[in-house]
This record gives sequence, C-alpha cells and structure tokens, in this order.
Amino acid sequence: MLSDQQLHDFNQANLSDHQFRYQHLTELLNRRGTDVAGVVQKLVAFQVAIPSWALGTGGTRFGRYPRGGEPRSLEEKIADVALLNQLNGSSNSISLHIPWDIPQDVPAVQQQLQEVGLTIDSMNSNTFQDQKEQPYSYKFGSLSSTEATVRQHAIDHNIACVEYGKQLGAKVHTVWLADGSNFPGQQHLRRAYQRTAESLASIYEAMPSDMTLLIEYKPYEPHFYSMVIPDWGTSYSLCQYLGKQAQVLVDLGHHLPNTNIEQIVGRLLHFDRLGGFHFNGSMYGDDDLTTGSIKPYQLFLIFNELVDGAQDEAVTNPAVAYMIDASHNTKDPLEDLLQSVESILGAYAKALLVDRAALQEAQENNDVVRAEEILRDAFLTDVRPLVQEAYRQSGGALNPVAAYRAAQVREQLIQQRGKFSLSTGL
Amino acid sequence: MLSDQQLHDFNQANLSDHQFRYQHLTELLNRRGTDVAGVVQKLVAFQVAIPSWALGTGGTRFGRYPRGGEPRSLEEKIADVALLNQLNGSSNSISLHIPWDIPQDVPAVQQQLQEVGLTIDSMNSNTFQDQKEQPYSYKFGSLSSTEATVRQHAIDHNIACVEYGKQLGAKVHTVWLADGSNFPGQQHLRRAYQRTAESLASIYEAMPSDMTLLIEYKPYEPHFYSMVIPDWGTSYSLCQYLGKQAQVLVDLGHHLPNTNIEQIVGRLLHFDRLGGFHFNGSMYGDDDLTTGSIKPYQLFLIFNELVDGAQDEAVTNPAVAYMIDASHNTKDPLEDLLQSVESILGAYAKALLVDRAALQEAQENNDVVRAEEILRDAFLTDVRPLVQEAYRQSGGALNPVAAYRAAQVREQLIQQRGKFSLSTGL
Amino acid sequence: MLSDQQLHDFNQANLSDHQFRYQHLTELLNRRGTDVAGVVQKLVAFQVAIPSWALGTGGTRFGRYPRGGEPRSLEEKIADVALLNQLNGSSNSISLHIPWDIPQDVPAVQQQLQEVGLTIDSMNSNTFQDQKEQPYSYKFGSLSSTEATVRQHAIDHNIACVEYGKQLGAKVHTVWLADGSNFPGQQHLRRAYQRTAESLASIYEAMPSDMTLLIEYKPYEPHFYSMVIPDWGTSYSLCQYLGKQAQVLVDLGHHLPNTNIEQIVGRLLHFDRLGGFHFNGSMYGDDDLTTGSIKPYQLFLIFNELVDGAQDEAVTNPAVAYMIDASHNTKDPLEDLLQSVESILGAYAKALLVDRAALQEAQENNDVVRAEEILRDAFLTDVRPLVQEAYRQSGGALNPVAAYRAAQVREQLIQQRGKFSLSTGL
Amino acid sequence: MLSDQQLHDFNQANLSDHQFRYQHLTELLNRRGTDVAGVVQKLVAFQVAIPSWALGTGGTRFGRYPRGGEPRSLEEKIADVALLNQLNGSSNSISLHIPWDIPQDVPAVQQQLQEVGLTIDSMNSNTFQDQKEQPYSYKFGSLSSTEATVRQHAIDHNIACVEYGKQLGAKVHTVWLADGSNFPGQQHLRRAYQRTAESLASIYEAMPSDMTLLIEYKPYEPHFYSMVIPDWGTSYSLCQYLGKQAQVLVDLGHHLPNTNIEQIVGRLLHFDRLGGFHFNGSMYGDDDLTTGSIKPYQLFLIFNELVDGAQDEAVTNPAVAYMIDASHNTKDPLEDLLQSVESILGAYAKALLVDRAALQEAQENNDVVRAEEILRDAFLTDVRPLVQEAYRQSGGALNPVAAYRAAQVREQLIQQRGKFSLSTGL
Repeated sequence: MLSDQQLHDFNQANLSDHQFRYQHLTELLNRRGTDVAGVVQKLVAFQVAIPSWALGTGGTRFGRYPRGGEPRSLEEKIADVALLNQLNGSSNSISLHIPWDIPQDVPAVQQQLQEVGLTIDSMNSNTFQDQKEQPYSYKFGSLSSTEATVRQHAIDHNIACVEYGKQLGAKVHTVWLADGSNFPGQQHLRRAYQRTAESLASIYEAMPSDMTLLIEYKPYEPHFYSMVIPDWGTSYSLCQYLGKQAQVLVDLGHHLPNTNIEQIVGRLLHFDRLGGFHFNGSMYGDDDLTTGSIKPYQLFLIFNELVDGAQDEAVTNPAVAYMIDASHNTKDPLEDLLQSVESILGAYAKALLVDRAALQEAQENNDVVRAEEILRDAFLTDVRPLVQEAYRQSGGALNPVAAYRAAQVREQLIQQRGKFSLSTGL
Repeated sequence: MLSDQQLHDFNQANLSDHQFRYQHLTELLNRRGTDVAGVVQKLVAFQVAIPSWALGTGGTRFGRYPRGGEPRSLEEKIADVALLNQLNGSSNSISLHIPWDIPQDVPAVQQQLQEVGLTIDSMNSNTFQDQKEQPYSYKFGSLSSTEATVRQHAIDHNIACVEYGKQLGAKVHTVWLADGSNFPGQQHLRRAYQRTAESLASIYEAMPSDMTLLIEYKPYEPHFYSMVIPDWGTSYSLCQYLGKQAQVLVDLGHHLPNTNIEQIVGRLLHFDRLGGFHFNGSMYGDDDLTTGSIKPYQLFLIFNELVDGAQDEAVTNPAVAYMIDASHNTKDPLEDLLQSVESILGAYAKALLVDRAALQEAQENNDVVRAEEILRDAFLTDVRPLVQEAYRQSGGALNPVAAYRAAQVREQLIQQRGKFSLSTGL
Repeated sequence: MLSDQQLHDFNQANLSDHQFRYQHLTELLNRRGTDVAGVVQKLVAFQVAIPSWALGTGGTRFGRYPRGGEPRSLEEKIADVALLNQLNGSSNSISLHIPWDIPQDVPAVQQQLQEVGLTIDSMNSNTFQDQKEQPYSYKFGSLSSTEATVRQHAIDHNIACVEYGKQLGAKVHTVWLADGSNFPGQQHLRRAYQRTAESLASIYEAMPSDMTLLIEYKPYEPHFYSMVIPDWGTSYSLCQYLGKQAQVLVDLGHHLPNTNIEQIVGRLLHFDRLGGFHFNGSMYGDDDLTTGSIKPYQLFLIFNELVDGAQDEAVTNPAVAYMIDASHNTKDPLEDLLQSVESILGAYAKALLVDRAALQEAQENNDVVRAEEILRDAFLTDVRPLVQEAYRQSGGALNPVAAYRAAQVREQLIQQRGKFSLSTGL
Repeated sequence: MLSDQQLHDFNQANLSDHQFRYQHLTELLNRRGTDVAGVVQKLVAFQVAIPSWALGTGGTRFGRYPRGGEPRSLEEKIADVALLNQLNGSSNSISLHIPWDIPQDVPAVQQQLQEVGLTIDSMNSNTFQDQKEQPYSYKFGSLSSTEATVRQHAIDHNIACVEYGKQLGAKVHTVWLADGSNFPGQQHLRRAYQRTAESLASIYEAMPSDMTLLIEYKPYEPHFYSMVIPDWGTSYSLCQYLGKQAQVLVDLGHHLPNTNIEQIVGRLLHFDRLGGFHFNGSMYGDDDLTTGSIKPYQLFLIFNELVDGAQDEAVTNPAVAYMIDASHNTKDPLEDLLQSVESILGAYAKALLVDRAALQEAQENNDVVRAEEILRDAFLTDVRPLVQEAYRQSGGALNPVAAYRAAQVREQLIQQRGKFSLSTGL
C-alpha cells in the first residue's frame, strides 16, 4: 500500500492537468445534455473483481518468465488486491481459486478482508489439474468422467468450494469445466453432456439459496477436438436444466474466430441468464491479454449492451458479476491489472455517454449511418478525464500505473517476497 | 430420363467389376460380423431431398457462368430431380422455394410428382430479396423489421408457403432468416430477437399439426456485423419459445471457423431438437460446394452421431429431414448433386460400419487410441461397393455420374431448354 | 455539388463548436510538444482515391437494394467524386474499372477532370466476369487459364486498361486476379502460378516506365478451395519475378481470420514492395464495409506502421496509393464513402500524434506497458477537431455527412438520375 | 525392443488376413495399371524422423498427466525411436533438441545409433525458454532481441547446436523462433525482422556446406499479438536473404484458420524452398495432435503435392526432411507416434495411386468433376494393405500399435524407468 502522503503528492502533481481536461470535457458533454456528475458516480460505483491467480506471472506451455515479488499466500494476494483497489478504487473484491487459495484460518482472512475493505467475489473450482494428493485423476474428465468415482470426487471438490464460499461470504461459485476430448471417438458426446448435467445438479443442490452458479464455456483448450461446454448455447441449456440460480459466464477469450460477443451478451440478458464476465483481451484464442488491448471497440460494444440492458425496464436479468481473467507473460501483473480495469472503466464510460433515445429513434427509422454515428460519437470521445475523476473521487490515484511505478511497488515486493516467489499452482 | 435399356446396358458393362469388389468387401465385413445386406438395405432406404434452386448454375456476387439447359419451370425442375432419382435411387423428393416455385396448377404438379415417384420435401420461404411487385422492402429485415407492416408482409409470405406446402403434401416448412445488420448500432439486438420470435409464432400457429418448422442459423452473410439467428443456441431458444413442432436446421456451411459441427448435432439430438440438414461442403464460409468435397472426415463424424443416435433407445428425437443446399459455380449442377448424394451415402455407410459396442467399451475405459481406431477403421474402409450395390438394388446406375455423362444428358437439356435458361430468381 | 453559399452557411453554423474543441485540443497537444499545425497540414495533404464502382449500391449474391440516383456514366461518376472531394477535400482522384468505365471521349473526360480538380488514380482490370461480347470465357480462369487463347484475351484486356490509363494519366494499374479453383484437383497449383507469372510479365512489359503494377491478393472468394494469389507472399514473389515497377496491394478484407495486417504492412515497407491499399471494414471476410467500422484500432495500427515508415530514413519504399474499396448494401454509398475517408483521416491523425522517440525508447528497453500506453494515448485522443480543421482548411465541410444530408444531395440525384439507375456491371 | 520371436509370432497370427486383403487390392490396382510392388517399395523407403521431445507426455499450460516410463536420457530416447523403427521400419532417425539432448559422450551416442540403425535427422535449438544457468533472458526475444548480448547468446546457442549436429552427422539445423510480442507497440515490427535476419545470417555462416537451415513459421503462440516469423512469406524472404542452404519448414499446425496448406507446399516446391515438414494434426491451432487425426483429406492433398512435385522433372527442389512434431496429452506417446507414421504412410500411398496423366488431362480440359474424382478415387481406396505390406517387407509388425500393446511395452518401460520419469525440459 502506498502511504496517504505518497498518494496525495502524486495526485497533486497531476491535478491541474486533470482539471484542465475534465473541465473542458464537462463543458463539451454538458452541451449535449449529459449528466457528467452522474456518469462519474456510476464509474465510482463500478467494481471489477481481481482473480487471485492473475496476481502472478503466467505463461504458456512453452515457458514462463517470472518477474519476482509474487504473492506467496492468500494473505499476500489479498494485500495485492487491496493495493490495486487503493490505486483505482474499482477492485474491491477478489476471486479465489481452490485449492490454491484454501483459507487456513477463516476468521483471520475475514478480518484481513474487512481491514482492507475487500470482499470475496467468487469461488472457482479446479478440476483441470491433478493435485498431488489426489486419489483419482482428471486426465479423462471430471464432472463428465465415465467413472462415477471421479465424478464424485469432482463434485465433492466443488461442494467444498461452495462451503469455503459460504464461510467467506462469496455469493458466486464459478465452474470452468476443462473436460473434453482430443480425438474423434474418444468421448461419447451426448453421454458426456448428460453426465455433466447430472454432476452440476449435485453441486447446484449444495448451494445456499443466495449463491449463483456461473457456468463458463470455452470452445477449445485444453482439449482440441471437443469441449463438453464449448459455447453459450450449451451453458444456457445447462442453466435451464439446473434452475434459476444458474447463469452463464462469458469469458471474452472463449469464442471461435469472428464471434459477435456483444450479441451473445444481449441474448443472455434477454433470457435473464447473463451471470458474469471474465474480462481479457485476445487476438487468436484464449490469449489472456490485457482487457481492451486488442479490440477496444468490441469492449465498448459489449458495455453498450450492458448499459442498454441496465437502462431498459424490460430487462429482468439479475446483477452481473464482473471479473478479470488474464495471464501476464510479459508485463508486471499488477500493472496489467491496473490497465485492464482502466480499459473497462473507459468502455463503460463511453457506453454511458451513448444517446439512447436518439439511437433508438435512428434504429426504428433504419437510419443506419446515424445509428452508427451515435455509437461512434461516444466511442471516439476521450473519456479519460471521467475515469480519472472517478479515481480521484474514490480516493485513488489519478493515474494508477504511474503512481504504482513512482512508488516503486514492484521493487519493494521483490525485496519482501523474493525473486522466485510463485503465486499459482499451474 | 434415361431409357431402361440405356441404364441396363450401362450397368451390365460395369457389373463384373462391381461384383468383384462387392464380394470381397462382403467377405471382409462378414469376418468382422457385419450384416452387409442390412447395411445395404439402410443405404437403399436413405433419401436426401434436392432443392429446386440447386438445379441451375449458381455463382457469387462477382458473376456467374451458366452452362445451359437449366430448368425453366417447376415442371422441368421436378423432371431433373426425377432423373437424379432414377440414377441414384436416393433423391425421391424436392424442396421448393417460394416465390420461385409457386405451383400454377396444383393438381398437375401432384400428378407429375406421382408419375415420377417424387414427393415435396419442404417449402422454403424467401425474405432475403425484394420481389418485383413487392409493396414493402426487406432491405432492413423481414420477420425482425422495425416496421410492423414489413413484418406482417413477411409473415404472410411464410403462411402462403405453408399453404402451398399443405396443398402439395410437404411436411416441412423451412425458414432461413437473412435478417441482420452490417454495422454496430444499426439494429437493437435484443428487440430484433424479440420481434423475430413473435413473427415466427404467427407462422407457427398457421401450420397444421403434422408440419415441422425448421429454423436455420447462420453467423454472417448477407449481413456482416450481426445476424438475428447466428448460431444453434439462438435457433434452439426460438424452438423452445415456439413449441414442439419447431426444430433446428443445421446447414454445414453456416458456422464460424473451426466449429465442431458433429457435437452440435449430438447436442440437438439429445435435446430432441434436430430437425434437418442442409448438406454442402465448405472450406471458408458458406461456400456451398459439393458435400464431402473438402472435409470428408467431418461428414463421416456427423453421420456417426446420427447413426449413434438412431441406434440409441434413449434418443427420442423425431425423424431428421435431409436436404442438399449448394451452389454450383464451376460444375454441372446435376453432376454436382450426384456427387453430393454419393458422398453422403458413403459417409452414412461408414457410420453404419462402426462397431458401436466396441466403441462404447473403449470410451468407457478411456482407451483413446482404441476408440479413435474404431472410428478410423470404418472411415478408412472403401465402402464404394456398398453404395454401388444400393444403387443397383434401387434400380439406379452403378455409377450415376458416369451414366449421366454416357447418356449425354446435359447436351440434350441444352438442346431442349436452350443455352441461357435460368432456374432461380437470384 | 453544393453551392459555395450552402457550404459557407453550413460551416458557419458549426464553426464556434469546432473552434471550442480545436482550441482545447491544440492547447492539450501543445503541452506535449506536438506541432498541431503540422499535423493538420499533413491531413490536408492526404488523399484517398474513390473507386468508381463504390458510388452505387452493392450487395451480396443474395440480392441488392438499390437506393436510386446512382451514376449512370463515367461523367456522373466523376461528378460524384467531385462532390465528395468538395465536402472533404481528401478525395481528389478516382479509380476506374474497365470495361465499366471505358472512356468514350478521352479529351472530354480529361477536361471534366481538370474542371473539377480530379485525377485518375488507377486503372482496374476485370477478368472475373464474362462480358456479353466476350469470345472466350473466364469461367476457369483468366491469366492462369490452361488455354493460351483465354490467357491472351486476359492479357490483351489488361494491356487495353494500361492504354486507357496512359491516355488518362493514371500512374497505377491494379490487377485483382479472381482466378482459382473450387475443388481439390481442379487446378494444378504450381502450373497455375507459373502461367499467371508469365501472363503478368506480358502486361508488365506493356506498361510505361512511370506506371506501377499493383498485385492484389485474396485468400478466397470467388473461389473456395484455392486462389492463385491468396496471400502477400505470393504477391511478393510475383513482384520479384516481374521487376521494380510491380508492388503489392493490401486490401484490408482479403485476409484469413485473425491476420495481423499491420505486420504485413511493415514487412512490405521493409521490402520496398508496399504499393497500395484498398481500405474497407470487415468482421468475417471480404465484407466490404465502411472503413474503420469494425476494427478501428487495427486501422490505427496500420497507419502507425505507415507513419513510422514515412518518418524512417531507412525506408525507401516508394509512395503508397490509397484507395477505398467497399460495397454499400445498406447505406447511401456517398455517405459511406464520406464516413470511410473520415475514419482514415482519424487513424492517420492519431498515428501522427504518436511520440515516436519515446516509443522507440520504450521498445529498446522492453518496457511493454509504456510502449503500449504511448500508442494507446494517441489512439484514445479525440482527434476529430484535427480532421475537421483539415476539412475547413481545404475548403470542405466541417462535417461532410451532415452537410451532404442538409443539402439533400441524394434526393436531387434521384430526381436527376432516376430511382433505378445502376452504376456497375456486377 | 521386441524379440524377433515376438515379432514373428505376432505377424504370423495376422498374416493370412493381411494376405487376403493385399492380394485383393493388388488385383484391383493391377486392373488400373498400377505398379503395386513399386508403390510398396516407395513406402518401404519412406522415412519420417521422430523428435526426441515427443517421446514423453506433453500437455497444455493447464497441466499434464504423465503416463510413466518416459525416457530419462538421450540414450533412452534413442532406444525408444529404435523400438518404433523396429515396429514400423519407417522411423530411422531422431531429431534432437538442445539443450535437452546435449550428448555427453559423442562416440557412445554414435555407437548406439549405429547399433540400432538410426541416424540424427536434425538439430533443434531452443530460445523460447530460459535455462537455469542462463546469463541473459529470452523473455523479450532471442534472435530478434533489442539487446545485442541477448542476440549473441542466442546465436551462440544455435551455433553450438550446429556443432553438435556436425559431430553427430545431422544434416539439418532447424530454427523455430518463438520471438514476438503480446501487445501493439511492444516491438518495432520492421526492426525486429531486420535483427532476426542478421542473427540468422551469423548462424548460417557457421554451418558446413552440406547442412541445411530450416526456418519454421508460426502465426501465434507463445506470443499473441505478433510473431517475428508468422507466415511462409516471411520464412521465404529470410531464406532469400540467407542463401541456398536456407529452406522453409512447414509445420501443419502453424497456420491461421482455413489456410490452404497444400498450396503453400506447392508454392515452396516451385520456388525450390521447401525444406521440411513438422507433421501433426490440428483443429484449432497448434494443437499438436496425432497426424491425420482431424483432417485426413488435407494430409492426402499435401502428399499429392509432394508426389506430384517428385514426379515432375521441372521441380528442382532438394530432398525434403520429414519429421513429426506433436504433443501427447491423452495418448501413450509411442502409440501416438506409431499412429502418426501410419497416417503419413497411408496419405503417401494414396498420393502414389493418383493417375497423374489422367489428372493432368482433366485439369487441362477444365473437367472439374473428373479431376476431383481422380483424386477422390485414390483417397477413398483402402490402402492399409499396402502400408502393412511395407511394414512386413521392412521387417516390422503388420500392425505396429497392436504389436506394441501385445508386447506390453509401456508396462515394461514404467517398470524400468519409473512412473514419474520426464523426457523434456518443458
């Protein structure tokens, strides 16, 4: 954590430039009738959860290049998220991954969370790896396994996650199921689905009534012929099978080439089944890059659907859980996360600027150019002053990455935790 | 049509070669315990419908190169399909496209069909083009249009198709909805879906209780930002909205790159919602090439799902409608259709050879290599003698394309119908 | 054309808003040390050619929805481009397509061009269609055809284009070769390449020494198995075979999914072989949408390479020819073209704002976050005031689309040219 | 290794079935005029190298599930390849990966190789990982690094590989360069290319005159924005820069979606620059599955180009190096390799059956259907008896996978080497 003085000094040095830009933008937006203060307020309120596993250096199957100073324990992970939240005021919760983050001392964790002003966003189960002590292997699947004992093992693991979640106050349990097959014939496609549905039902039944089960989909990797839950349609059908507490989770990197993701978002909102997001950036597949680093317009269009849905009384979809899910191979993980949150806030701010009445009118009249220009007008607006103002109002840094660098956080973390600390079990 | 003598002579000339091959394969398959006669019987029974619009030369937006002799009327289209069916005994029905195939004299059409032993497979509506006399334009959509009058116009057109279908005995009405948008913002994604669902409900209500509504999906083209029904999940959700007579239609070319289509087929079978197929071949998108010409293994794997479902008592999916849907730019359309049907029969024959008990055992034991080898064994078998035997038993030609060429059918059609006849309204 | 008074009145009504924004941006950029006037000057100088075939409503193989008022002759096409250039000052040349635009009276065309201040940018041959009077068919290829007479016919057509170009002062001859095959086996891949290379050599020899031959590539459509020139590597190898006057043309829509186009641009610059661009927007394939409508960041990154190359003394690539190539299915073609040019100018402006010294330093130090942020800083800047100022300084409209609408140009064109005029031979 | 008796007994048990099939196929092919013995002879002569790193269980970034019995040393790797070669007679060489396979005692390795009848196929450098003792990091690139010391380190490593190769008699040095960037701006695209070209030149100069440098390309992974050598065009341009001993290596999994790989093969043959192959199977990306497991027709079409080139006197491309490069996540690696070689032999056998004179005639006449049918006829032929006969004639097992299983090789290897042995440094 930075000291209050550090933060204050940093902001003071940048304040006049910020004010110059913010005042001009306010004037500009006021001319269009935008409630600028209201937009900033929404940005201040917006929160995106940080996954514990993104706090360290990731990598690919070809190797990793850790940077040092990675958190070595749940406590250190919470500390890192607290730091991020201090800097941007927009990351007030953490997602945990079991077994990597099993809390050894629940009251202590609760106390730490309270002290730093964080909550647990979601619990995330892991059935894509064998743990050292594991009696049964997930090599050929977990919830979809042909072996009842393996399925039960995976169900029990998920229920254990739910239990940890109850203890820590998490309201979301997320299942990313890596099950699938690498070769035609390996798996009976229909039976694998049915076994999965039944396994999920066992987990669903174990959940308290105020917990949501998020079902993620992914077309390929780690399996390269079929995945049991490859697309939103499959997730959706499983939610229907399970009940109202089951919802679809959209990970931006989990789509086939050229997928129109914002349309999927709109569909799920329409069906009351949009449960949450894993934000990241991608060019080819599940690249897990910084959110917004490759397709910023797509990110804006996704938020355009979300804001449109939020402002539409006909939409009864429950609150959506926002989380980052990325892997940091060449950047400092904490800088990457700060960049991701900033991109998300920027996309959200732009979506809030869209003149929805005018847009609807243009759409109803099939004035294609005008409808498009209304969206582009919002997208092309430089909203960084709004995001900075939100940072400022929530007590963060006007420029979180710059403040992080100025305070030499990474250098300190390396000193504290060592050059070769590791944060995940991957 | 070829004369009986022509067909007989052609087959006689090829019979001994066929018998040499067929006997060897029979011996080989008998050793594995395959009921060869039963397989051939299934091939004889298999029928795939021919779409009226595939009887002429297609093309791309960049131009066409018609070959001449195309059917100029519904009667000539029926005659062409009758010829195909004479040659391969596997195409005993025709799909009609309205308005291109509006029957002027229903009893006459019925009589012609009866005489040549054909039925009407399905009616297909067209709301992707404006017809000359059309009072309202589909430029900005049809069933999803923002204008109620346009929607009603499109609904009425579909109901008219249903009526023609009732008159002609068709049991299937197929909707391929070209509605969509080219630019972000152009269309309100959620409202477009809802309008479509309601329009479809109006059509659904007009259908007799023994008719099935097939809902096709397609991710892009003719619109290049969003399509209202882009994927199987959307088709599936619309079927759920409509009722039991609504089913999903899978067109092999209507998927994003790298989609595992056979898995979608398995899913829909599992949900009792697999209604029909549009067969064709594709490498890049909706290329509409000859079925099996690019990815023959994929075609086999699709039939593997179909045969597996057909042999599984747990599957209660109703009968599936098989149809070709292709565009013939560089081949003689009739030759192309004969090739497509042959590929389909070959894939079906191979799927019938799969040792399902052994496959299930290997799958249950996660013996990946063995499970794969069981499929590959069937795929690598040269089943052409089985397909030829099915042709022979159903009174067709041992080699339909060769017989077609030997009889100089195209030359005769050009003479009869002219060099510049046109079969579609595209 | 709008009257001077119309244009003046339009600009007056928008001037104060423009000045408010432009002054603020100038101040902001001055703080960073940007030479704002220099940037605007570069924008003023930037010109992108308009293709004659994009002045009318395009469409897909599934149909067209013309809007009316399309130019019916070369003269009307020149008039339309003159109008665009009046509005944005950035489209002072036109690309012609032979045979659609064969000049009947060369001196008259020259005079018209001079009067409206336009030049001919490039000649474009057409060997993807058979013209009515054509003795040989391109059905199975043109420059790659197996028949020597067909090849010679296609060569002669291209040489005729070169001749028209010489008469009209065009300095570029563009070959988009639609040759390819739809099925494995159809074409001998190596021989088709060699025949193409030799045909191109015949055309190359007929060119004057100050003309450039641009060789376009495209992976698929209108053929769906192989294209003779599918990728930049093939275009590049052909250029090497031909000589220094041959260059590669990059059409943004002619790439496989997920291609990093900006890297290809950098490669070709490095090899002195980047000849020109066809700008358009695409999400799936050769969608031919408005430039910048789908992937604005990609467009910026392409201009980033171009500006970087232009400012690098080590780069000796000759001047690049910029052209739009799009198809307008749902928008007014002239509005679409104005939008496209505006997107291009915006991307160029942003690329000009990049702090290249700082970027190089960050790159040399492998400071990934900082290097990325330098690009993002430019991209996120709202440069519309710079583009508007360039419009203003070149005598155009502050907002070309709005001015076009305000002057009711389309309505007038429909009145003059009719509702069903057609501008292309597609 | 199996004992001679084991192998003999296995073959005896399967011989009569083989003979029944082989004799029938011989009769069938003789009717068409095929020189069956000549085909088998070519299959016997065909050899595909085994990479040392594919002898163990691979995995993805999400985890691994080793099977046990993996080779722990270069000696054990050679032993494993010798076993494969005993079983199929088609894998008489091994590719080494440095530093994983640094020979500690060169004469001993040479002697072992001679005893088991193997040679070293190629040396493969590794600059995509940091080794423990490594003074400089490849985190931001190796041959393309901005730091001269890192580049020199990578050059030295490659030259060391060349030296090991000289000692062991390898005639090929393969460079797969993982260098690239994850974010726009991270890397200067042109300069990264130029640095790479110069680094490769240093390696090239160190090679003896009878060694070939193979330059691999890959569009993405481990970097997800740009790779320095993403496509064949880049590899080709580097080969031109370096000289005649540089050639392009084609890895089947290293292409963007929908790439026509066989056309690239034809191009490179035409340019005398096809140096080698990495065979594997893929559905989505660099999936590294069993060769032929996903797209068997594509594999056949690739061999069709190779055979066509080999039989064409106009082609002067030097001999091509064939190698498998795969990762085995769910299968026994040795079984997977036996399957891969079998698929390759099958594809080669089918390509040898193509009636090239008839194909050329159909191509020259643009008889699309006939040209395609000629290829399909070869592809649909069940050539397994030919491959089995080749196994038999070269002293291998009629069915290598079955023999491997019958001899319980894996069980023995686990006993000898342990359950947790590891064969690669990944």
